[in-house]
Amino acid sequence: MKSIRVSITSSPYNVIIGQGTLAQAGKQIISVLGRRPAKCCVITAQPIWKHWGKVLEASLKNAGLNAFVLKIPDGERHKNLHEVEKLLVGMAKHGADRTSIVIALGGGVVCDMAGFAASIYMRGIPVVQLPSTLLAQVDAAIGGKTGVDLKPGKNLAGSFHQPHLVIEDTETLRTLPQREYRAGLFEVIKCGIIRDPRLFQVLEDERKAILARKQDPVQHIIEASVKVKADVVSADEREGDLRRVLNFGHTIGHAIEAATGYKQLLHGEAVAWGMIAAIQISCRMKTLNNELATLMTDQIKSYGPLPAIRVRREHIISFLASDKKNVAGVPHFILLAGVCSTVVRNDVPMSLIREVIDSLLTHSKISNK
Amino acid sequence: MKSIRVSITSSPYNVIIGQGTLAQAGKQIISVLGRRPAKCCVITAQPIWKHWGKVLEASLKNAGLNAFVLKIPDGERHKNLHEVEKLLVGMAKHGADRTSIVIALGGGVVCDMAGFAASIYMRGIPVVQLPSTLLAQVDAAIGGKTGVDLKPGKNLAGSFHQPHLVIEDTETLRTLPQREYRAGLFEVIKCGIIRDPRLFQVLEDERKAILARKQDPVQHIIEASVKVKADVVSADEREGDLRRVLNFGHTIGHAIEAATGYKQLLHGEAVAWGMIAAIQISCRMKTLNNELATLMTDQIKSYGPLPAIRVRREHIISFLASDKKNVAGVPHFILLAGVCSTVVRNDVPMSLIREVIDSLLTHSKISNK
Repeated sequence: MKSIRVSITSSPYNVIIGQGTLAQAGKQIISVLGRRPAKCCVITAQPIWKHWGKVLEASLKNAGLNAFVLKIPDGERHKNLHEVEKLLVGMAKHGADRTSIVIALGGGVVCDMAGFAASIYMRGIPVVQLPSTLLAQVDAAIGGKTGVDLKPGKNLAGSFHQPHLVIEDTETLRTLPQREYRAGLFEVIKCGIIRDPRLFQVLEDERKAILARKQDPVQHIIEASVKVKADVVSADEREGDLRRVLNFGHTIGHAIEAATGYKQLLHGEAVAWGMIAAIQISCRMKTLNNELATLMTDQIKSYGPLPAIRVRREHIISFLASDKKNVAGVPHFILLAGVCSTVVRNDVPMSLIREVIDSLLTHSKISNK
Repeated sequence: MKSIRVSITSSPYNVIIGQGTLAQAGKQIISVLGRRPAKCCVITAQPIWKHWGKVLEASLKNAGLNAFVLKIPDGERHKNLHEVEKLLVGMAKHGADRTSIVIALGGGVVCDMAGFAASIYMRGIPVVQLPSTLLAQVDAAIGGKTGVDLKPGKNLAGSFHQPHLVIEDTETLRTLPQREYRAGLFEVIKCGIIRDPRLFQVLEDERKAILARKQDPVQHIIEASVKVKADVVSADEREGDLRRVLNFGHTIGHAIEAATGYKQLLHGEAVAWGMIAAIQISCRMKTLNNELATLMTDQIKSYGPLPAIRVRREHIISFLASDKKNVAGVPHFILLAGVCSTVVRNDVPMSLIREVIDSLLTHSKISNK
């Protein structure tokens, strides 16, 4: 078991990572809050609840905690305000008050929606994140970003709401479908590329063991990724723009997700395509040399297969316009300037963006023939 | 023109009060932000826009600001998440980004919803409040509380999001229906009762001039009320519980509003009934003497008439259970302990609450025969 501190000045918290940590959730929650919350609102989704609900329920019960469960439908397409409203109404009907807490057990969608619901219920109650997918463990559950999608774009409604505690049980990854597991690995690869050359190397060296979900390398890459995210998020308050580095691959990634109606690709897969695009753009903008670009692109592909993107180029372009990272309508790209070095650029010509998306679409069709 | 500082440590701001201040909104916004926002999203409602839209539009245009207008339907029953979603989608469609701002022109519903939309759009953009009703000027626009109602209760979804600036134009009160103006006066009376004996006295002495909306006493009571709210809100970060004093009259007031479906009474009118109830409870709990109780109750009634409450007692009681001020299901009451002295009590017997609500219902029927 490892504990990593997220040192946000206003509200620091720990991320606990290890085998079987879910069974200790109840005890840990009381220890962090310093009290028994009046009610624990567990927000989860059926597929994960089926596997791990009993473990969590027992843990809360053993700690003497009073809990009720609200389930949200699985999948990014349900990450909307309507479902959040159902959660809030459910919380009110179960008598949750300002001394209650939200406990999120699930993947990125559950973490984002439960965190958002907690942040606006009675103007904010605490949330404890229990991410159960690799993607959520290395990304969604840490950093306090919460939110839902709107028709015009992803995560357009949301809040910053830091969790009081994050508990990551590597055991829960056992029940994860292989495609979802791979999708999470792309965010791990992102962490290696943007900030941790050792992680990048481990991903090269231990590919087989990682894909086979061996405990030791899996624990290692999760810890390393969480550290990258924790460092960036902790420093963000001081450095302002630093946090944007985490959006590497997300500018085009988000546009692809939105353009395909959040149906064809998992978030991590869209980010993988987005990273391949950002690496290409970095080469063409002469911030990155071809050798490094090939090395990185090859690593991404080696953790594939990546599903095809079946949509018109201009549809993707149209969603770039409503990206949150835009300033005054101009897309901002996080480009690479070498190993673990990034640069934010707002001067990528539209013609180059079009060319790179064309190349992605062609490439994605060929590799999925 | 008067400027009152709300000294919240994290984000202090000014409340500008005076005749014709709306015409200076554009200039003031640029001065406070220190820049021209990419886009100004004006959120308003048709009745106020009809009267004051041109003044605001001219002011923004003269300052070189790029604005678009989104209207929300008038009335508390539209203060819901669905309408907020429409605002957020509208903002995205108009290309609002993180450097854009929201400008709220309207009453309490507009202030609450626009503030909430600003707080969650792209995880938060600035809001400037231009409250146009008396109620909004002395209450809703100041303090950063935003939110919408859920079926189970009022303001159950929301956030704290301090405005960057509040501009109050006493001119806009001219176009306010008399019933709405009176409803706002009840929140002014609340400020006098809880914190400002001089304001209480002015409300006694200048009743006629105030009801006739004479500029001088109106400017005076708004300034005094804003000072009360600004003081409490500024001190809240240090004193924790102090802010609850502002909820005087709101425990039963909110329950009455919810039980009557937000249709029979304006917010200020419900608060007036709630204050009368809280004063009665204070007497019965022996925290307040009968003489003061009569003096205060008489002042509230003298600014009436108050419309009847047409609903069953138990329906009101059922909504007390989901009040945000509850802790572990127990209603918390802000009671009076003398002139400008309050006490929070969670030991008011249900039998007494029932008795007092019965008395309110009887009283409200008699006075509306």
